[in-house]
Amino acid sequence: MGLDTDYKKIPKLLLHNEYPVFEFNKHIIDATHEYSVAYKPNLAFYEMLGAAGHMSLEMTVSYIRETYPDMFIIADAKRGDIGNTSHMYAHAFFKTLDFDAITLSPYMGYDSISPFLEVEGKWAVMLALTSNEGSKDFQQLQLEGGRKLFEEVITTSSEWGNVNNIMYVVGATKAEALSRIRELIPEHFLLVPGVGSQGGSLQEVAEHGMNDRCGLLVNASRSILYADITNKFEDAARFEASKLQSQMEEILKKRLLI
Amino acid sequence: MGLDTDYKKIPKLLLHNEYPVFEFNKHIIDATHEYSVAYKPNLAFYEMLGAAGHMSLEMTVSYIRETYPDMFIIADAKRGDIGNTSHMYAHAFFKTLDFDAITLSPYMGYDSISPFLEVEGKWAVMLALTSNEGSKDFQQLQLEGGRKLFEEVITTSSEWGNVNNIMYVVGATKAEALSRIRELIPEHFLLVPGVGSQGGSLQEVAEHGMNDRCGLLVNASRSILYADITNKFEDAARFEASKLQSQMEEILKKRLLI
Repeated sequence: MGLDTDYKKIPKLLLHNEYPVFEFNKHIIDATHEYSVAYKPNLAFYEMLGAAGHMSLEMTVSYIRETYPDMFIIADAKRGDIGNTSHMYAHAFFKTLDFDAITLSPYMGYDSISPFLEVEGKWAVMLALTSNEGSKDFQQLQLEGGRKLFEEVITTSSEWGNVNNIMYVVGATKAEALSRIRELIPEHFLLVPGVGSQGGSLQEVAEHGMNDRCGLLVNASRSILYADITNKFEDAARFEASKLQSQMEEILKKRLLI
Repeated sequence: MGLDTDYKKIPKLLLHNEYPVFEFNKHIIDATHEYSVAYKPNLAFYEMLGAAGHMSLEMTVSYIRETYPDMFIIADAKRGDIGNTSHMYAHAFFKTLDFDAITLSPYMGYDSISPFLEVEGKWAVMLALTSNEGSKDFQQLQLEGGRKLFEEVITTSSEWGNVNNIMYVVGATKAEALSRIRELIPEHFLLVPGVGSQGGSLQEVAEHGMNDRCGLLVNASRSILYADITNKFEDAARFEASKLQSQMEEILKKRLLI
């Protein structure tokens, strides 16, 4: 579940708190944790609030870690820089903040990713084929030899680590491409945003992207976070999260995975 | 000049301050401002320090803005996300923090960049061909039709804005490619990191990358910041910055640009 917590969209009744974004997250997490396996704060939403945003992020990660110790926590940060700098980012997200995983942009190549792979027990989640319109601009360009760029990114980078430290981001709006991606990397976990507000279908994602141990982390954000903005927001969020969880459960049962 | 301020490398005599990273930056900026046209804090180095790092960054940007109002300030952040999120990043860097420009990764395409171009008077600095070894992994891939990926990134994205709101990052270690890039975009500013510790040559960069109004922002970081770590660090930094400035001045004079 994405914690793309927009200060302007949270219920007014929380605004009297010192850290309203954290308060909102805490309530949302308590309401949805039974139906979630992972939380994914989106860094932009915290950075835009400056120091207060940073505090809210830190408090959110600590709260999840302490209250729901089995929860997986992903920094949706889309970082990536020369090796020297990526080492610092790895420290920032895996040590200073206790994230389990971070999303990374592949453009700068091997040494921009490897510092994240060197941290035991942590994950690099690389952008492959994203859910947005702009994914066609470069990700889907045809390379000499027949492959598309996102296919080359997947094939090349999957050799930098293994199925226990690399995942890939594939947008739910690109369901057909999931089949092709599963040919390239049958075993890797895929992080699939875009279900809900962005219009992706869970059914199609599962059909094309699921492997024999599921292999999918399907993300929804806005459709759950802002399901209601009155004092019933927790119930509404719980309901939306449970709907998605039920759909997923049904699919997993049909495929005899649970 | 890059403010890649590594807490572990700054002079011990500054460590008693509440915000030693800011103190160091302040001294370095005072020592080098005569020889610089822009400062470029590298976000990773601040993020790894958590809330204290955030404060140091905020204080650094404010200090430059107030003390040297003509200085250009670049966030070396390499961001880029779906439109909704990029809007938040644009707010974070151009409103919450008062940067003039931000470095961006092009992988997610148009809608990941456009929110930055919509802010009047601010700049998007897009990664094209970076200085690191990993730039060969994807940036230099050959596309169907003959172009390389970084050439396509430049050609496509240069139409999203204009010479007054887009610049490109081209590593100083890729001097030969600068000639090719100048054919594609004769007028755009290029931000050229990699002179100094990364081994790029100012002479070669100028030869291949300068246009008829200069068109280059050449960056050095570590070679100036850590020129000395005793109580003479300001003098050493001033000296290193002045050397680079003199070399640049000589080149500009030879080309009759000043």
